[in-house]
Amino acid sequence: MNENKLKTPNGVCGSRSAGDPLVLPPNTSSEHFHDFINRARTICGLDNVFVLEREDQLIDGTYRYPNKTHDMHAILDRTYFVSSATVSPRNVPEVQDMMRLCNEFDVPVWPFSIGRNTGYGGAAPRVPGSIVLNLGKHMNRVLEVNTEGAYALVEPGVTFFDMHKYLEKNNLREKVWLDVPDLGGGSIIGNALERGVGYSPYGDHWMMHCGMEIVLPDGELIRTGMGALPAKASGSTSNLRPDEQPGNETWQLFNYGFGPYNDGLFSQGTLGVVVKMGIWLMPNPGGYQAYMITFPRDEDLHQVIEIMRPLRLQMVLQNVPTLRSILMDAAVHNCKAHYTNSDEPLSEQELDEIAKELKLGRWNFYGALYGPEPVRKAFWSIIKDSFSKVSGAKFYFPEDRPEEHSILRTRELTLQGIPSFDELRWVDWLPNGAHLFFSPIAKITGDDAVSQYEVSKRRCREAGLDFIGDFLIGVREMHHIVCIVFNREDPDSKRRALWLIRTLIEDCAQHGWGEYRTHLAVMDQIANTYNFNNNAQLKFNEQIKDALDPKGILAPGKNGIWPQSYDKAAWVLSSDPGKLPVRGRSER
Amino acid sequence: MNENKLKTPNGVCGSRSAGDPLVLPPNTSSEHFHDFINRARTICGLDNVFVLEREDQLIDGTYRYPNKTHDMHAILDRTYFVSSATVSPRNVPEVQDMMRLCNEFDVPVWPFSIGRNTGYGGAAPRVPGSIVLNLGKHMNRVLEVNTEGAYALVEPGVTFFDMHKYLEKNNLREKVWLDVPDLGGGSIIGNALERGVGYSPYGDHWMMHCGMEIVLPDGELIRTGMGALPAKASGSTSNLRPDEQPGNETWQLFNYGFGPYNDGLFSQGTLGVVVKMGIWLMPNPGGYQAYMITFPRDEDLHQVIEIMRPLRLQMVLQNVPTLRSILMDAAVHNCKAHYTNSDEPLSEQELDEIAKELKLGRWNFYGALYGPEPVRKAFWSIIKDSFSKVSGAKFYFPEDRPEEHSILRTRELTLQGIPSFDELRWVDWLPNGAHLFFSPIAKITGDDAVSQYEVSKRRCREAGLDFIGDFLIGVREMHHIVCIVFNREDPDSKRRALWLIRTLIEDCAQHGWGEYRTHLAVMDQIANTYNFNNNAQLKFNEQIKDALDPKGILAPGKNGIWPQSYDKAAWVLSSDPGKLPVRGRSER
Repeated sequence: MNENKLKTPNGVCGSRSAGDPLVLPPNTSSEHFHDFINRARTICGLDNVFVLEREDQLIDGTYRYPNKTHDMHAILDRTYFVSSATVSPRNVPEVQDMMRLCNEFDVPVWPFSIGRNTGYGGAAPRVPGSIVLNLGKHMNRVLEVNTEGAYALVEPGVTFFDMHKYLEKNNLREKVWLDVPDLGGGSIIGNALERGVGYSPYGDHWMMHCGMEIVLPDGELIRTGMGALPAKASGSTSNLRPDEQPGNETWQLFNYGFGPYNDGLFSQGTLGVVVKMGIWLMPNPGGYQAYMITFPRDEDLHQVIEIMRPLRLQMVLQNVPTLRSILMDAAVHNCKAHYTNSDEPLSEQELDEIAKELKLGRWNFYGALYGPEPVRKAFWSIIKDSFSKVSGAKFYFPEDRPEEHSILRTRELTLQGIPSFDELRWVDWLPNGAHLFFSPIAKITGDDAVSQYEVSKRRCREAGLDFIGDFLIGVREMHHIVCIVFNREDPDSKRRALWLIRTLIEDCAQHGWGEYRTHLAVMDQIANTYNFNNNAQLKFNEQIKDALDPKGILAPGKNGIWPQSYDKAAWVLSSDPGKLPVRGRSER
Repeated sequence: MNENKLKTPNGVCGSRSAGDPLVLPPNTSSEHFHDFINRARTICGLDNVFVLEREDQLIDGTYRYPNKTHDMHAILDRTYFVSSATVSPRNVPEVQDMMRLCNEFDVPVWPFSIGRNTGYGGAAPRVPGSIVLNLGKHMNRVLEVNTEGAYALVEPGVTFFDMHKYLEKNNLREKVWLDVPDLGGGSIIGNALERGVGYSPYGDHWMMHCGMEIVLPDGELIRTGMGALPAKASGSTSNLRPDEQPGNETWQLFNYGFGPYNDGLFSQGTLGVVVKMGIWLMPNPGGYQAYMITFPRDEDLHQVIEIMRPLRLQMVLQNVPTLRSILMDAAVHNCKAHYTNSDEPLSEQELDEIAKELKLGRWNFYGALYGPEPVRKAFWSIIKDSFSKVSGAKFYFPEDRPEEHSILRTRELTLQGIPSFDELRWVDWLPNGAHLFFSPIAKITGDDAVSQYEVSKRRCREAGLDFIGDFLIGVREMHHIVCIVFNREDPDSKRRALWLIRTLIEDCAQHGWGEYRTHLAVMDQIANTYNFNNNAQLKFNEQIKDALDPKGILAPGKNGIWPQSYDKAAWVLSSDPGKLPVRGRSER
């Protein structure tokens, strides 16, 4: 019964002809692939189809300018999650044609907007040899910024930086602010679809999206929510080309439309290629003040989280607040070698000393006040009173922290929607620094925070790695972000990082904690922890997948969802952490 | 090709045997129906299966105690949207068994929680002769109220009143508040699924839901979001029976889980029966003040809406504010006959006089301030300054309005989550009062409000009905709620109401306005206005429907979604308003 199913990746091509990719799509002959590429070139133009032929085209040295066809923080062999070709459509009809072509040729396709998704797999596809659709290369217009309704309509290639520049250039920041994540280089659409977060009151990017245009796996085009309602005859205000159909005026104002609200299917999903999306902007709040609170002791974590919960639920903490462990800040200031000659994990004493040297706490809280002065004052007085209960807590405004690479001064920008790249610096903690994010969700209690922190720190130590992480509070939940920094040129370091993340997933599942997003390499493992009633939800997802994408061409394997055309057992990656690799003993 | 499809309702049974229903399910023989009913009785118990045999069992005289098997505000013939039987499962496994039974017998099933949905079809099914599942009769437990995380987990039968009583009884209102709609008798789950709204800061009930348990059309059970992750071994705090599987502690805290976020599929959907749902409660804000602002002139509408938009987007208006036309308030005080002897629509002059008599404006704004005093003061000063620009605006607190049936005193309760039935009184505007809601979405501008108001008022007048309605502002959109009140014992009045809603749907679509929710009788018409790219979204919905419910047993026709097993052309109801019925000339 399974004999026609796709069993395994083709792997690296054996005897190769000119123009063959490093890895062919599954069950695809060289000849079939070349026919496909020729057709793709007819659709998107010669310059917009690039076959990845040699390993040296995988430039992963500089994550600042990533080669967009793979994961620059590869945790498996860097030729594993690798595409056969990059195709960059120039407009929506070309995306539609590419979907039809992939169906015709039975070739898997992995779309991305900009290709960041750093720590979670970058631009790399789950199935080796997939072609990747680089949507952002050409489709990068800000289609509309509407200050009256406080929203923007964008294409996949619009980054947080691009939008910021657009707002600045058109003097729109007086009216509307953007919410940005730690790094400004990613796509607004890509980030929202992966349910990434920022730190202002508009930090839940998925919640703040409104209205999408989507190419379905069969090439059909839908608009969701009020977008399904045609615009009135008198037209629209957006920057669309004359050949493009204007959007309904309420498309970016009301998410739900009429009938089932389908947008969620396309977040972390495999059912469509999002080619336009609305995002709500925050009306300029009429006043702003960023602040930092430092807490001196490691064991302050419990008390601080208990104070944060009611304040956040009450919206006294107006933004998505973060509580960062000392190393997350220290690593922005300096690399590990600055603090120690050892490559062992830092001891508690060393961490205390680093905190002292940097005039930071073991935990550092970043927040901001928004609104007219009386409102800010009222909130600040409650906040200050509440956190003063932690003995030794210190309160700072940006002007109190003039030092270079001051996190507070960076956060002062981030929390008002001005993007930066500064926070990338912590990846350089180790030489050839690369990273994986491990990000479980928990309820907001001191007990959960301490327990999660202890489990993570212990496992990090076992793996010979330092704990770098923070807690952030969305609406009612706590995201714990553990930054697993490893040396990407050191196979031993990579193996330990992989052991660590697989082990942590297992540990956390036993505590009832699940991850909100993850790297390609552990998607199957995490999907299998969400297994209520024999994986009923995953089966439900796969049933919808098979109905809408019967050949399984779109993003097969993403988030553990495998189409019927794949022999799942053969494709699912191991979740076994195996034995902890002994440091320095691995065969390099 | 269509020969096996379900073509038309069976209609009222011809020669009837004992125990036959008034209307059989489509393509179902009397014998087959009786076999089905016997099996249903085996599953749910004798007392929990009720066959609707006689028209006098359709008691629609008192909407306060509706017969739960039909629409007490029937706009078509009252035996059209009628069920064959009511089945009331006692627990989740019985719901699962009923879904399997309906598949086995090919019988359509229409689930409801409590069966209100007043103005939109009540408990009635779209397909005549469907069996209805009365979920709320037995499944009505408050499973958990968690004050730390500020949420509740409920079953379908929990009404806003029930939850309010639960909070009162357990002294929980000091900690958490519920958001309630105008009337407190509906189901929390049912209201959220239909995307109903309330009026506190938590007014968007769909946005504020978190985590669901759902029986799929094939009887399978899923939990969405973090609910798919099993609870930790040490168990859970909720009020479940020992045979019920405890929920993950983050199920009601974080909506999205891992992978596609599927919840929206089940709102206004046909893909599952929601048997548990989480709802976020508002932490007691630590201070509260309701207020009313009256605006004297009909033409103040434009200016008032222009003032409301930035204040709401800035969250200075913290709650979902409403701006009510004079008759909406006047109708709560008295019926039409109190104000006039004529049955013609009231003139502008009469409306001015009514406003004067009641010491109200032609438009009346209801809002509330939340939070500690300094925050309330800061907001109130901005609000008062802003609306004072409207000449003649008057500001009131509840103690300023001691009169009987004071809307402000009712809203003072509603806006802090204390439910009531007072607002039902406007349905008695006409003798044998019944109503339909017409509720288009628009952007928040004075121009849109005035234009929508003018179109609605003109069409109401043409239909010989009074305009009763209000505008409310959700997050970035304006819901306009037009209450079409008619005399349910007067066929002419019913025909005029139907003409009115069909005409308004058409008018509004031409302006680019679409409805967020609607009555059974016009679902097809509205679904067809959301027709971007040849109804691509509706086709998408139907494709998913056919994959998950191949026999089309669950809620066929809801929101215009028809399963493949139905001959759609034969089932879709006319959208033609036809000629406006001449008053008093209809054949009665």
